Amino acid sequence: MTQRLRLNKNADRRLKAGHLWIYSNEVDIKETPLKNFAAGETALVEASNGKVMAVAYVNPHSLIAARVMSRDPEMRLDRSLFVHRFNQALALRQRLYAQPFYRLIHGEGDLLPGLVIDRFGDVLVVQLNTAGMQALADEIVDALEKVIKPEVIVFRNDTGGRRQEGLEAHVDVIKGTLPDEVVLEENGARFVVPVLNGQKTGWFFDHRVNREWVNRNVEGKRVLDVFSYVGGWGVQAAVHGAKEVLCLDSSGPALDQVARNAELNGVQDKVAVSEGDAFEALAALKAEGEEFDVVILDPPAFIKKRKDIPNGERAYARLNREAMRLLGRDGLLMSASCSMHLAPERLMDVVRGAVRHQDRHGQVIFQGHQGPDHPVHPAIPETSYLKALGVRVFRD
Amino acid sequence: MTQRLRLNKNADRRLKAGHLWIYSNEVDIKETPLKNFAAGETALVEASNGKVMAVAYVNPHSLIAARVMSRDPEMRLDRSLFVHRFNQALALRQRLYAQPFYRLIHGEGDLLPGLVIDRFGDVLVVQLNTAGMQALADEIVDALEKVIKPEVIVFRNDTGGRRQEGLEAHVDVIKGTLPDEVVLEENGARFVVPVLNGQKTGWFFDHRVNREWVNRNVEGKRVLDVFSYVGGWGVQAAVHGAKEVLCLDSSGPALDQVARNAELNGVQDKVAVSEGDAFEALAALKAEGEEFDVVILDPPAFIKKRKDIPNGERAYARLNREAMRLLGRDGLLMSASCSMHLAPERLMDVVRGAVRHQDRHGQVIFQGHQGPDHPVHPAIPETSYLKALGVRVFRD
Repeated sequence: MTQRLRLNKNADRRLKAGHLWIYSNEVDIKETPLKNFAAGETALVEASNGKVMAVAYVNPHSLIAARVMSRDPEMRLDRSLFVHRFNQALALRQRLYAQPFYRLIHGEGDLLPGLVIDRFGDVLVVQLNTAGMQALADEIVDALEKVIKPEVIVFRNDTGGRRQEGLEAHVDVIKGTLPDEVVLEENGARFVVPVLNGQKTGWFFDHRVNREWVNRNVEGKRVLDVFSYVGGWGVQAAVHGAKEVLCLDSSGPALDQVARNAELNGVQDKVAVSEGDAFEALAALKAEGEEFDVVILDPPAFIKKRKDIPNGERAYARLNREAMRLLGRDGLLMSASCSMHLAPERLMDVVRGAVRHQDRHGQVIFQGHQGPDHPVHPAIPETSYLKALGVRVFRD
Repeated sequence: MTQRLRLNKNADRRLKAGHLWIYSNEVDIKETPLKNFAAGETALVEASNGKVMAVAYVNPHSLIAARVMSRDPEMRLDRSLFVHRFNQALALRQRLYAQPFYRLIHGEGDLLPGLVIDRFGDVLVVQLNTAGMQALADEIVDALEKVIKPEVIVFRNDTGGRRQEGLEAHVDVIKGTLPDEVVLEENGARFVVPVLNGQKTGWFFDHRVNREWVNRNVEGKRVLDVFSYVGGWGVQAAVHGAKEVLCLDSSGPALDQVARNAELNGVQDKVAVSEGDAFEALAALKAEGEEFDVVILDPPAFIKKRKDIPNGERAYARLNREAMRLLGRDGLLMSASCSMHLAPERLMDVVRGAVRHQDRHGQVIFQGHQGPDHPVHPAIPETSYLKALGVRVFRD
């Protein structure tokens, strides 16, 4: 029989407002001790008055003690629920994209907390980020077989989220055989994606719309792509008419992939790579008198936890200042942040500070966010994490 | 000789951070009484230690007592400054747009506080929103003659901003003769623009990118355009494949223009109009059992002043609830707000509340802002005013 998880008085408010998370301190642990639950166990959530509100899965070892899977208490967490949700998610993506390259499931944003699935054609890369989703792995795979019928399914279960949930890290091809190269197409360019050992699932679909915007502004330009990873921004810029592109990254293997991806698109003559620490490389470029028309800053999350905010903001500020020094008289800065803890107005302030520091002027002409295959849940601010400011920087 | 305007101690901080405004309570009125300045007079702004920081124009009758025109104290507010700034602004627009239809000058965002100029080909519509810009009217017109050489210049000096500055309202064609119809093209559709008696300058260029996004999601759909004005959203949707469009507005003349614009694009068979109060019309449509695939909400600013926030937020909430009731099982809501005082996260919350009220689910798949011909000044939050959320609304 499904156990009940009782909330403290008034702790039902956020749920009623649409949120899907229950924090451990919101559980009435006298009535329903968390220690009675196994990690990943299904529970019926009830308000302090005993009224059943939702079906959730529980992790007694996590700060987020439970995540709601359905507001219908009768709903069973079985294959048919996943089939239904996958079909809903697929319908959206098929409306949005002509080709099967996208984030298929974006966790809470697709009403499936803790589950991420990226689709590269017939290859699905799955991340089970919570004990609850781990416990439902079989149902998930069965439902994918029914809805998508992929040739290959990869579990990229080596995420930071899993560590917090007390789950072990592993990467497995659980169905089919990976082809030598997994290739996707985005904004008219093709990329080989390192699904087994690249960052996250191997690719960042979330910046697609922001890259599209940059692509429209690079014709004939000299472009610098900082934290290039496998060249998502830089190679696309070359494909869309940039005169010259320099990709900077600290990872040699990532830069090898940049070269491969440039070749795949026939722009190898326009794309150069440079390995090193971003801050050092920016300083070196400045010392050499280099100048660029467009600089792209897509750093890793400098702020992973709330307590990192002051240091992280300083790092963003320094990075933006150093990058802006490399722009010519009338240049374009694409300044991104994937730190959920960096508020949009704080990134705006980072840009403001960099502009003033150089005694230049700035016009923010683009405010980008994550693409539509990363839906934001309107009750869960944490699901809106990506920011990308397009800034014209000029001397008056 | 140019008078000095001295700031109170520490009142130079915001200016140093890049802002362009000086509030009346920041002026050291013992040293430099505001009453010594004529409305619109030029002044040198100095910090409390006497250091000259900028050239500004002053209005002793306005809460914003002065607005900075240049950080170079040597700069004269003459034709050549305007020529320089207009060329800077034009260079950006020409990079962005293949056709001469755009906001040419967006006030502070183009370093010209209080000045707005919209361009409809050879017709320029100018708004002098401050006493300072009013005093520089001749220099502005001279500079436009040099940079743009327009056939027609219209002053739409009937703005709310002018009232606050103590300026009279008037609308004049100050150069050339207005053609019978001023026509612009946007996102592949053509529109007649009522420059003399329409809202603002006659057209809202700021939503161009948000309309473009809607256009990509209307193929074969039934669309409702609430607060349609002359049909910017609705007629474009019809041009981009919507099956059927209903435009709602409280203005008969605006709806006449919707019909004219539909005809101009050959979509008159798909576009219907209905005159009335938005809230009543939405209720009536619900009572009649009408259902739409896409609903567009682009209301006038419900929050004009800070004190209107609570009432305004309630109005946005009610409007979004009423609109959402008209969506089918899997619909799209475009929910916009041009109220600078409605924070982006508050509009998100309005959408959240409407979704919950209907016991539906929402996925925010688009977060739009003003287009790039309305540059945001990174030090002036007030210059970022437009929000547009694209929300998939569905029943689970």
